[in-house]
Amino acid sequence: MREMSYLSTNPYKGTRDFFPAEKRLQSWMFQKIRNVVSGFGYLEYDGPLFEPFELYAAKSGEELVSQQLYSLKDKGDRHIAARPEMTPTLARMVASRINEEPRPVRWFSIPNCWRYERPQRGRLREFWQLNVDVLGGERRFGDAELIQLAVEIFRAFGGEKFLEIRVNSRSLVDHVFRSEMGLSEVQARAVAKLLDAKDKMKPEEFTGRLAEQGLGASQLGILEKFFATSLETLATDFPGEASAEIVALFATLEKLGVTSTVRFDPKIMRGLDYYTGVVFEAFDVSPENNRALFGGGRYDNLLGLFSKNELSGTGFGLGDVTLQNFLETHGLLPNFESFYDLYCVCADEAAWFAVQRELPAWREAGLRVLMPLALGSFKSQFKEADRFKAPYTLVVGEEELKSGDWVLKDMRSGEQTKLRASELLSRLVVKGSQKS
Amino acid sequence: MREMSYLSTNPYKGTRDFFPAEKRLQSWMFQKIRNVVSGFGYLEYDGPLFEPFELYAAKSGEELVSQQLYSLKDKGDRHIAARPEMTPTLARMVASRINEEPRPVRWFSIPNCWRYERPQRGRLREFWQLNVDVLGGERRFGDAELIQLAVEIFRAFGGEKFLEIRVNSRSLVDHVFRSEMGLSEVQARAVAKLLDAKDKMKPEEFTGRLAEQGLGASQLGILEKFFATSLETLATDFPGEASAEIVALFATLEKLGVTSTVRFDPKIMRGLDYYTGVVFEAFDVSPENNRALFGGGRYDNLLGLFSKNELSGTGFGLGDVTLQNFLETHGLLPNFESFYDLYCVCADEAAWFAVQRELPAWREAGLRVLMPLALGSFKSQFKEADRFKAPYTLVVGEEELKSGDWVLKDMRSGEQTKLRASELLSRLVVKGSQKS
Repeated sequence: MREMSYLSTNPYKGTRDFFPAEKRLQSWMFQKIRNVVSGFGYLEYDGPLFEPFELYAAKSGEELVSQQLYSLKDKGDRHIAARPEMTPTLARMVASRINEEPRPVRWFSIPNCWRYERPQRGRLREFWQLNVDVLGGERRFGDAELIQLAVEIFRAFGGEKFLEIRVNSRSLVDHVFRSEMGLSEVQARAVAKLLDAKDKMKPEEFTGRLAEQGLGASQLGILEKFFATSLETLATDFPGEASAEIVALFATLEKLGVTSTVRFDPKIMRGLDYYTGVVFEAFDVSPENNRALFGGGRYDNLLGLFSKNELSGTGFGLGDVTLQNFLETHGLLPNFESFYDLYCVCADEAAWFAVQRELPAWREAGLRVLMPLALGSFKSQFKEADRFKAPYTLVVGEEELKSGDWVLKDMRSGEQTKLRASELLSRLVVKGSQKS
Repeated sequence: MREMSYLSTNPYKGTRDFFPAEKRLQSWMFQKIRNVVSGFGYLEYDGPLFEPFELYAAKSGEELVSQQLYSLKDKGDRHIAARPEMTPTLARMVASRINEEPRPVRWFSIPNCWRYERPQRGRLREFWQLNVDVLGGERRFGDAELIQLAVEIFRAFGGEKFLEIRVNSRSLVDHVFRSEMGLSEVQARAVAKLLDAKDKMKPEEFTGRLAEQGLGASQLGILEKFFATSLETLATDFPGEASAEIVALFATLEKLGVTSTVRFDPKIMRGLDYYTGVVFEAFDVSPENNRALFGGGRYDNLLGLFSKNELSGTGFGLGDVTLQNFLETHGLLPNFESFYDLYCVCADEAAWFAVQRELPAWREAGLRVLMPLALGSFKSQFKEADRFKAPYTLVVGEEELKSGDWVLKDMRSGEQTKLRASELLSRLVVKGSQKS
């Protein structure tokens, strides 16, 4: 009755299977992140994978909605989509509790997201993304806290020395483009888009495309001056509220000891439609990787879709694939110990049941114990223990059962120790950090 | 520029938002489960949310596929579906590593699954489901281990005394229906379906429907005898391999100390198409809840869709909504402590930055510390600390900054203690168990 053609065992294109080793690695990354973020008082939230289509149609950018969304109509004719990003869900949830939730709202989530993309290095159709957001509070404190928190995450992995966070401000760019250069809104948007794509062009092409937008010599001069300005000259070069805000943010970061990993970079643009204040993008500055790692910024109108309540916040997103590539590149992934602590070699059923009586206490103490499910020879059971890479075996044969002296064998050194069942726990000290 | 009609802040029908309190509760449940299951040497795996449609079309049962599946065609015309259950993914993954993975394979997962259902108590469109499976090994040992493990999960929550696992065997039912009663395959299937629906019928209706299937008096007699048989009489009433297997399983369970929570129940049928050996279904036996909690069984042909390799296993699934309802009913949910350990009240910027210098060490030690993001009055900061239900506040004003004697305030008792910054950690002993 079996089908003649078998189904493929591959996962759907652009997605990953998490076998136990991969799952352990991902859990390890996420747990480290959770520890850091929780230390800053951020609380984890989560939402449904499917959301109403309109949630994305309104805000998520055209490419994402028209080309990358996994959407369907349910049997009640509701148009829904698998989330391509978490921010719309965050906005919906915060909007629904806007009068109850104490502020500042400090929330994070590590959802899986779906985008129909051409799979390539660092880009998959299903990925997990850490989202951290702070809503409310003074801008410079909130912005600084998020940047500091991001650095702390990388420090927890031992990777902060490869990290550089380039910071700019959307309102500063606005001020320079509109007030100083006198660009129209359309021009400003076009120039910003060009800047985002600048690295993919030759310098002549870039200048040519700017000229196409109708920028004159004096406007190009201002743009050049803007790109050449530094944190020290910014306030005198482009005086105003926007530059004062950036200067204040960097002063705050400096007093927080976040200095080597951040720098002002007027060329950072990041999704101009979305952000309204500080924007930042983090890079791996090592020559081996040299990739964008994460980005974020301040938005002033998160809840606009749901109510007229205004709430300003800052957020960033960090993808699991990007982070894992980064850690791999720099050799920052751990060498995991065995999945298990102990394998029990049992001569016969009497031994098997005798060991079983001890197991609840050992498991309660955190030991991960494998019992054979078939009572083959000692040799076959030791083989199995080897296949599972068990660091220790407990050997209970007829003789051990009679004497009550069981044998603990260190599978690496081969060393064997006699012990009573009651002594086992004190021998196999459980290290919490070994656990996946 | 704002739309005049706002979007709803409700999540998609039949799904839940996990605000921090709900997320903490779910994480707490899952962590307890992970601890127990890991103790038995089971490893966590995960797979993509979307799988090829054919994976479900072939095996998951008609109602599920034709009425409950969230499916779509991607832009490459691939027909995919959000998983309604995890077993097909497990089968695919195991099949892809059939020659590498050491056996017995002991795996678990806690995926979210999607089914288009009419939302009702205990049944939602998005739910999480613990899946535990053991593949390989001797049947009675594997079956017993899984049942034991399920009991241990409920014990970890303090709920094992409300649990009853009713055990039957698909091969025993087969033997009785086919060999003893002489039913055809079609009849056997129809009778099994009737039995599954028995509780919704009056006794007369049930007997009438059996008669409709063409069952004669002697066949009904055998059926009655089967339903009346007990573990003690089973082997003499219905001798054969199937009854011997059940008797052996119960003998194993008894020696494992799993007795009060299990009983033989010949009326348990559970998805006859799927299972081939032992089947079980767990119930809350308290009068307040009295609901099915989880179920599972042995299958002999998990990998049939992918290869001709045969691998027999036992598995069960336990839903998060069911478990949470159970724990709520019996008052087994914890009273969580605050989300935070400490809120720092800072008189001014000098104090704020002085506290910031201490924070890395405190956070490293596991403290969850809230800093104000706006330096209002002491009064307003204390109010904020109250809104966040911080158990302690650290108060640093001008005077404290000068003297180096900071003030720790217990927000419940109101008690205030002077301390040096370096003493704070030893005062606020971090209890790992408090953490979400």
